[in-house]
Amino acid sequence: MTQLEAARKGLITEEMKAVAAAEQIDAERLRERIAAGTAIICHNIKHTNAPPLAVGLGLKTKINANIGTSKDDVSIDKELEKAKVAVAAGADAIMDLSTGGPIDEIRAAIISQTDACIGSVPLYQAAVDTVTRKNKAMVEMTADEIFDGIVKHLDDGVDFITVHCGVTRGTVERMRNEGRVMDVVSRGGSFTVEWMAHNEAENPLFEQFDRLLEIVRPYDATLSLGDGFRPGCVADATDRAQIHELILLGELTQRAWDAGVQVMIEGPGHVPLNQIEANIQLQKRLCHGAPFYVLGPLVTDIAPGYDHITCAIGGTVAAAAGADFLCYVTPSEHLRLPTVEDVHEGVMATRIAAHAADLVKQVPGAWEQDLAMAKCRKQLDWEGQFKLALDPDKARRLRAESGVDEEHGACTMCGEFCAYKVMNERTEKDAAQLG
Amino acid sequence: MTQLEAARKGLITEEMKAVAAAEQIDAERLRERIAAGTAIICHNIKHTNAPPLAVGLGLKTKINANIGTSKDDVSIDKELEKAKVAVAAGADAIMDLSTGGPIDEIRAAIISQTDACIGSVPLYQAAVDTVTRKNKAMVEMTADEIFDGIVKHLDDGVDFITVHCGVTRGTVERMRNEGRVMDVVSRGGSFTVEWMAHNEAENPLFEQFDRLLEIVRPYDATLSLGDGFRPGCVADATDRAQIHELILLGELTQRAWDAGVQVMIEGPGHVPLNQIEANIQLQKRLCHGAPFYVLGPLVTDIAPGYDHITCAIGGTVAAAAGADFLCYVTPSEHLRLPTVEDVHEGVMATRIAAHAADLVKQVPGAWEQDLAMAKCRKQLDWEGQFKLALDPDKARRLRAESGVDEEHGACTMCGEFCAYKVMNERTEKDAAQLG
Repeated sequence: MTQLEAARKGLITEEMKAVAAAEQIDAERLRERIAAGTAIICHNIKHTNAPPLAVGLGLKTKINANIGTSKDDVSIDKELEKAKVAVAAGADAIMDLSTGGPIDEIRAAIISQTDACIGSVPLYQAAVDTVTRKNKAMVEMTADEIFDGIVKHLDDGVDFITVHCGVTRGTVERMRNEGRVMDVVSRGGSFTVEWMAHNEAENPLFEQFDRLLEIVRPYDATLSLGDGFRPGCVADATDRAQIHELILLGELTQRAWDAGVQVMIEGPGHVPLNQIEANIQLQKRLCHGAPFYVLGPLVTDIAPGYDHITCAIGGTVAAAAGADFLCYVTPSEHLRLPTVEDVHEGVMATRIAAHAADLVKQVPGAWEQDLAMAKCRKQLDWEGQFKLALDPDKARRLRAESGVDEEHGACTMCGEFCAYKVMNERTEKDAAQLG
Repeated sequence: MTQLEAARKGLITEEMKAVAAAEQIDAERLRERIAAGTAIICHNIKHTNAPPLAVGLGLKTKINANIGTSKDDVSIDKELEKAKVAVAAGADAIMDLSTGGPIDEIRAAIISQTDACIGSVPLYQAAVDTVTRKNKAMVEMTADEIFDGIVKHLDDGVDFITVHCGVTRGTVERMRNEGRVMDVVSRGGSFTVEWMAHNEAENPLFEQFDRLLEIVRPYDATLSLGDGFRPGCVADATDRAQIHELILLGELTQRAWDAGVQVMIEGPGHVPLNQIEANIQLQKRLCHGAPFYVLGPLVTDIAPGYDHITCAIGGTVAAAAGADFLCYVTPSEHLRLPTVEDVHEGVMATRIAAHAADLVKQVPGAWEQDLAMAKCRKQLDWEGQFKLALDPDKARRLRAESGVDEEHGACTMCGEFCAYKVMNERTEKDAAQLG
């Protein structure tokens, strides 16, 4: 029985209890949301060394970090270090998107050596294996090989898999008719477009969606319905191909729910600020409230080197409007495979976005963190500020580098002319006068 | 005659022509806005080595970088380097907030050795000089000394001066009655509160506002009406003290306009995401459309070390909602005086915010930049992407560090499995078939 099926029967599972306690919410409320599909517990039953992760309505906004090798950069150690750094920095989930080197070993290492929720895109490996192990062209990959690849990842304990089920011949035709600046920029999307064109066949993950559901259900893994038509530039945002795909994903969501399979929906991408809220509302309505997992949105195309920031901007607005799960973007986006440092920067920027949104979503405990920080700041309690900081190490280091210690009281920005000091001294004088 | 007075008479000045050309807008439209006070030309007539800077409705969102010494860190060279780095990174304006060392020399150096628009807070120096040169307590500073300090800065060519005219005994009382977590966090605000309390007198910059206008008008400098009650934490945002001060600033704006003096209004501060738009609308309405210059807003308090990002998030939303001028915040905010590297990071983050907002404000030329980048990206034209990047050097460096060259075509993220490549090859195949 999946969490969805249990919730529908009115059962509060151990996983629901654990998650509800962690989120400071009522377990029955959580059960209702899981039953309705507006929240999920993203946890493959084979993934025994990690706690369940809940994503959805009324819950803390979650963060994913994408890592993984490419053919140009195949170090297991480096990817494992990225995974550990991401988790230490506060990532809730890790997607292993490896496409180079010993892909199975990398995935196994990341699963066994972290306690994060794990996602993957099985199609990547199926495509890469076709080329590198079977010496065939990617388009010669069979439907069975695609499904076998999914089984392999689920057997390894992957909690959520991205499947580009909405990339259909019809959606591609819509895109071609309307015209797009950047066509398809999703890797899985582009593979699928090419596969369909070469084979003159429909996308197996769409056509055989029931087969997919039968495979996934026993693991209680989450289907993350990918957005192959994710806009790759702000000019392509919210176009007919993107929204048509979203309609298909909404239809597939209901079929998954009917089969007892948990679902989330993936979203853009590059989106101008003033279209973000509409994107979230559309997704929530078209997909009947299924959790929304966004890659960005990036609010401009022209900041390579700083896309963790363009992503944090869009992610904050998206999450505040209802997006439930934010995929980070690193400073290396659009330029290279990220380094370990990039991964850390990406997670921190995305944590800021998630938390800033949680403040306005009134997620339990969020507001209290800022209030506690404000009180420490007012009292010039530096140790207290460091402890409450999203990144205590960096905050501590920056102050230490400025050469002042606890005794200094203020910081080198204002020194003795610190506004907090001036005001605190005034308050003391006023109190003494009244006293 | 000030630009405001000229505009009211229907005159299109040389400065208006220059600015209109730079902004790709009609000079007559600009004149109308300057006449209405919804745009300003921020340019002290004594500042002969810098072009005029326009700020306001329908114009490109502008960026300011705060620099300046403190008692703990007094190097002229370092501050001058920060100013140059900020301008090179794209800052439109530099505020010199020096409170330590040879303040006059630092200001003179920054004015003479950059071509940026220059702002300052004359009260800082007046207060510091009182303490360090005159060996008096800060509160013993006289009203004449405050005004003399303003004259000194204007004579040096400062284009806009922050004056905390809305910090009045009445506003302080409102704040005390309501209660605040962090009281006043503005340096100038805290000096003024303390000065008023000690002297049991009203703020001279409020009480003698006409004297201030008479001083400023001959220079055609801009009054930047400071927000001494800027919230220092999200819990204090949009409270009665802040909004009462804003009402006063609106009243003073009209008095300044009546005297032919150009004005902009300073704004928050720490503000939760869902209150930002209301803050902008309130300012625009209460101050009859005067340009809005915001410090942030920072959307959370708990990210010291990353406040350039919390600021970019709030700044994007603020600017998209109508804020005209963004003051950067650096990674060192709340921790120390920024380093040269911090200044660069702060300017870049704020440029992202300004540009992402300009995309949705439909500022001339903004959309075209993203479109050009998207086209280069699609064609894997790396040199084109670097040239269009907000920070070409960083983009170039990150790719170079990954060890691939132009010949590689794609990047190390996806290598041969690059979605752009897959799609471009498909397009070529389709064209060949049709051909």
